[in-house]
Parts: sequence; structure tokens; C-alpha cells
Amino acid sequence: MTDPSGVDLSGGLSCPVPISEYKQVLLAHGGGGRLSQRLIDEIFVSRFRNEHLSPLHDGALLPPADGRLAFSTDSFVVNPLFFPGGDIGSLAVNGTVNDVSMCGAKPLYLSTAFIIEEGLPIDVLWKIVLSMEQAAKCAGVEIVTGDTKVVDKGKADRVFINTSGIGVIPAGVDINPRRARAGDKIIVSGTIGDHGMAVMSVREGLEFESSLESDCAPLNGLVEVMLAATQEIHVLRDPTRGGVASALNEIARSAEIGMILREEEIPVAEGVHSACELLGFDPLYVANEGKLLAILPSADADAVLNAMRNHPLGQRAAIIGEVTEKDAGKVLMRSRIGGTRIVDMLSGEQLPRIC
Amino acid sequence: MTDPSGVDLSGGLSCPVPISEYKQVLLAHGGGGRLSQRLIDEIFVSRFRNEHLSPLHDGALLPPADGRLAFSTDSFVVNPLFFPGGDIGSLAVNGTVNDVSMCGAKPLYLSTAFIIEEGLPIDVLWKIVLSMEQAAKCAGVEIVTGDTKVVDKGKADRVFINTSGIGVIPAGVDINPRRARAGDKIIVSGTIGDHGMAVMSVREGLEFESSLESDCAPLNGLVEVMLAATQEIHVLRDPTRGGVASALNEIARSAEIGMILREEEIPVAEGVHSACELLGFDPLYVANEGKLLAILPSADADAVLNAMRNHPLGQRAAIIGEVTEKDAGKVLMRSRIGGTRIVDMLSGEQLPRIC
Repeated sequence: MTDPSGVDLSGGLSCPVPISEYKQVLLAHGGGGRLSQRLIDEIFVSRFRNEHLSPLHDGALLPPADGRLAFSTDSFVVNPLFFPGGDIGSLAVNGTVNDVSMCGAKPLYLSTAFIIEEGLPIDVLWKIVLSMEQAAKCAGVEIVTGDTKVVDKGKADRVFINTSGIGVIPAGVDINPRRARAGDKIIVSGTIGDHGMAVMSVREGLEFESSLESDCAPLNGLVEVMLAATQEIHVLRDPTRGGVASALNEIARSAEIGMILREEEIPVAEGVHSACELLGFDPLYVANEGKLLAILPSADADAVLNAMRNHPLGQRAAIIGEVTEKDAGKVLMRSRIGGTRIVDMLSGEQLPRIC
Repeated sequence: MTDPSGVDLSGGLSCPVPISEYKQVLLAHGGGGRLSQRLIDEIFVSRFRNEHLSPLHDGALLPPADGRLAFSTDSFVVNPLFFPGGDIGSLAVNGTVNDVSMCGAKPLYLSTAFIIEEGLPIDVLWKIVLSMEQAAKCAGVEIVTGDTKVVDKGKADRVFINTSGIGVIPAGVDINPRRARAGDKIIVSGTIGDHGMAVMSVREGLEFESSLESDCAPLNGLVEVMLAATQEIHVLRDPTRGGVASALNEIARSAEIGMILREEEIPVAEGVHSACELLGFDPLYVANEGKLLAILPSADADAVLNAMRNHPLGQRAAIIGEVTEKDAGKVLMRSRIGGTRIVDMLSGEQLPRIC
């Protein structure tokens, strides 16, 4: 299994700051002394600079927040580090932006903590940091505090990134998986399975006629237009690991309601469909990194769907099913040919290190 | 280099929840499906339970905070996982509690994200989680959200833990390294170098006459009594990686002031002193995990010192030096025999994976 990050780097992007003279990250870059300080200043602070980022503090000092807070954390261990449509850096930013957004909150601040394996090329780290900078700008969030640890060679896999995020929940918004009610519509914001199959295709060295690309994207803007259409959204969820099937099953169990999906309404890109068939995956279980599920009253569904379709990240949004009173805790699916089957939770591991 | 965690576990502490039937963490425990859910519910949620921890959400929903926020993150990769006076779990909780406290804030909420190497004994994970539960209770903070990733065997070193923390800064408090002023006193809250030498002694299999123990502890209570004595504290810093020397150098540079320390005033435990002599370490550069440095006006020093000495974690607090106008950016030390030397920043790596 080779890491295609090397290929990407041959594009000529090399780290321009003086510390790149070291070529690789050394244990000493994590030791808390002068080299640590240089790594932090030249690579992280130089790119993430903002009014709240204070590398001299043990943490960031932030202004008072007006409203309830949402707080989320995620570690990213994706393999390979770079894949079509994204990389571990953009994934780390968007992943936490999305988790905070799924609380109905406007994400404001991120922390980022790197665990680096000794020997990681500084050019690779630089490329990841540029990607994070870009993703943070795009999502409108600030990276305000961080941490760097270096572990000995063979004790990690190049680089792992944790991001945590803080957001503020607008007054009147009450997103909670337990609020799903019989009669509610279930909306997905676009095609499913793109991220998982994009990573998989690179990892397995597969080539498909239609190229596969991760959907990695920040969903806070989409949530904003949805909440502008109605604050009566009951549930939001981004179906990452375990895919749409696992996410809906979790909600069905916690709200003690049933769900019925209509297979023909679930958008799947042609390339993802082919790749899934070839590799024996069900797109319902494949990870997404730029899609959301929304559950909301039937009366509001069209307005929200309309708002979503006018947003770049919701153009292929669709109502894929509804919440039912019967079959509590279960997700059913009516197939194209009329049969009904249970869509169960993923029981084991389908695609390790997808995020 | 053997991990003494096995020795500790022979004490008979085994995980009582049903998922321990698996004995070891599998890749599937991180897959986002049913096994992930069980690991989270049975191990993490069962121990960290509190009103804000909602495993069904992508993040935690928290009440509005009254004041400026402090936000900090740290990943912990300490080796070995268990050491005298603490373990990676208590370290992960106290480390972030302390970073938030060093902003002058009262820490309230923590996130925790685990990166687990496939094959980690579930009993080890359980023991770490119990330690985190205990440390969070002791510090008065809630673990409100989390994440678990599992990577394939050989791609991490048993377990890495990230914690991020949110705190609220009381009105009137303004802690900032740039506020150090000529004439300010420099206080350390107790003996230095205990954590680093405790970890080192286990790692190297050394035995000393006086046993070495990490000082791993939450400093928020100590900060509270200090701020009750005066809000006029200019700088707080916990001297972790790189030790007291690196922390003071960073402050001296950012505030563009000098410092003069008096060697005989710096408290060092007998065992740490011996171990440092034997191994060739300078305690000024050895990590602490339950000590703080404070820089504050001379007029307030006695009141603060008094308050500290009445707190269990500040009994050996001492004024170790003062801020000077000359020698800006430098830390000097007057030795026991009267000479003066420059205490420079650590340039490379002294003790890898100390936290």
C-alpha cells in the first residue's frame, strides 16, 4: 500500500520557510524548546495567523459568546493523507466544522493538534497546513490554538490531526436526534458515498472511468440557509463513518421511531455506483464528508429543500424517506422493484481509516 | 524498552462491561457501526456520564458562558502509559485543565479523542478511562464530547489521547505573557522536574532510593486562590515540556524583559536532584505537570505566596527570582556560590514523549 502523497508533492510545492532546511520533522521539533518554537512559528502561526491565535499562551483567549455553545472533537487518521477532492488537512477542518454545524451551531473557532511521526517530510506538513488554512478560510472559522507532538519513527503513521471546535447556537434552534417525529421528512443534501469510495479507490490503486472525488466540504453555509428557511429542523446529522445507514439507525433508536426510505430517491453518483458494485460495497454504508441528513416536519420540507437546492452544496438534495410510528428503532427501505428490507446498522468495520 | 503498564494491570483491575469479551480493541471498534457504539456507550459514556454529554449528537450542547472564553488543546503520547503518580488518562485531563487555567480561566468542559492501536487490551483502555473519570471529578470539569479512532497494528503506539478544554475568564483577570514588567516577582508553585524524572525512571528501569513520583495534578484550584489574593497577576504558565527554563525564556522574549533567578530558591525534591545528577539532566529543563510559574507585581507577591502555601498544591511555593529591565529576552541565574550564568532555551529534544 503506497501513499500517493509523494506523487502529489512532485508537483513542486515545497515549504519556503527556513525550518524546511531540516527536510524532515525530528523528535526535537516536539521537545518544547527552540526547535518546537520555530516549527510552530514558521509553519503553523505563519499560516493560521488571526487575532485570537496567541502562540505565547497555553490557550486562546476568545470574546464572550452570545448564546448556547456547541463543542465537538474529532481525530483524523485517514490513509492516504492526500486523495482526490481533499486531504487530511481539509478533512480535519471540515469534519469538525460539520460536527459543530450538526448541532445547529455556527462554528467559530477550531483548535488543531498534530501527532507527527518522526521523519515526516516538512513539505508534506506544509502542504497539509496550507490546505487547513484554505479550508478554514472557506468555512469562515479561525484556528486559534494548537499543539504539536512528535513520536519516534514507527510509532504513528506519518501524521494524525485532531481538531476541536466551538460554535454558537442561534436562539430558537433546537436540533436533537430525539426530536424526530412520525410524519417528518428525511432529506439528504446530495449524492452519498463519494468520500469513502474516493479514498478507497486511491488506496487500492483502482481506476474507474468516471473519476471519484471526495465530497469533503464545510456544511455550515448550507445549514445557515436551511435554518433561514425554517428553524423547525428537528435533526441534523452528517453521515461520516458508517454512512447514511448507520446515522439513520442511531437516530431511529434514540428517538424510538421508525424510518422508511425510498431507494430510488437516494442520490448516488454514477462513479460511486460502479465502484461500489465492483468492490461489493453498499453506498448506504460508505462515508460522506460533505453531506448532511435533515429530519424535519413535512410542512417545512419543500421550503428547506428549495433553499438547499439553491446552495452549491445542496443542488442534488432530495427527500429520501420519512419517519414512521411503526417499526420503532428500525430503518426500512422500499426498493426500486417494490420490496422492503431492513437497513441495519453496520456491525463491523467496512473501511478502516476513512477519516 | 518494556511498558510497565502490564505490571500495573496484574493488580487485577479488569473491565467489567460486556464489550470486554473482545479482550482487545479491534479495527471494527472504530468503524462507526454497532461495535463503535458499544465501545462508546459501555466504556466512555458509562464513566463520563454528565448532563452535557450526549453521545447521540455530533457535539455537546452547552449553556451560554458568562465572560471571555479560554480554549486549549493538547495531545498526549506519553510513554509508558502508566507511571508513578499518574498515567496518560490523568495527564490528559490535568494537562488541558492546566492550560486553560494558565489563561486565568476557570476550566469547565473537556473533549477527549482517542487514537487507539488495534490490539490495545480493553482492560488497559478501561483503566485509563477510570483514571480520566477520577481526574475530571477531582478538577471539577465535565468531559462532554469525544471521538474514537482505531488504527491498524503498528500504526500508533497503543493509545494517544487528545483533550481540548473550554473555560471562562473571570471579569478583571488579564493574564498575558507580555504583561511581565521589570520589578515583578517570579513564583514557582513547588518542586520542579518531578514529572519528567518519574517518567524517565520508569522508562529506563531505574530505581532510586527515594522513589520518584509525577506531580501530575489539576492547577485550577490553586489559580483560584491566587486570583482571590489578587487579580493583579500578570503571567501564569505551567512549565511542561522544556521545563521552567524554556517557559521563562519564552516569556522573557515575548515581554522583552530580562529575568534573574536565584538558584538556591528553586525547590527541587531530593530524589529528583539525585536522579538528575545521575542521568545528567538539569531540573530546570525537566517537565512538570502540576506546577505553575506566576509573574506578578512585587507588592502582591507575599499575599499570593501566602495563599499558595495554604493550598495543598502550593505548599512549597517560592519566589525564585524577578523580572529585570536589562538583559531583555534573557534569563540569568545567580548560582549558590555567587556566579551568574545564562539559562538558555532548550535547543533540541531532551526527553521525548514525556507527555
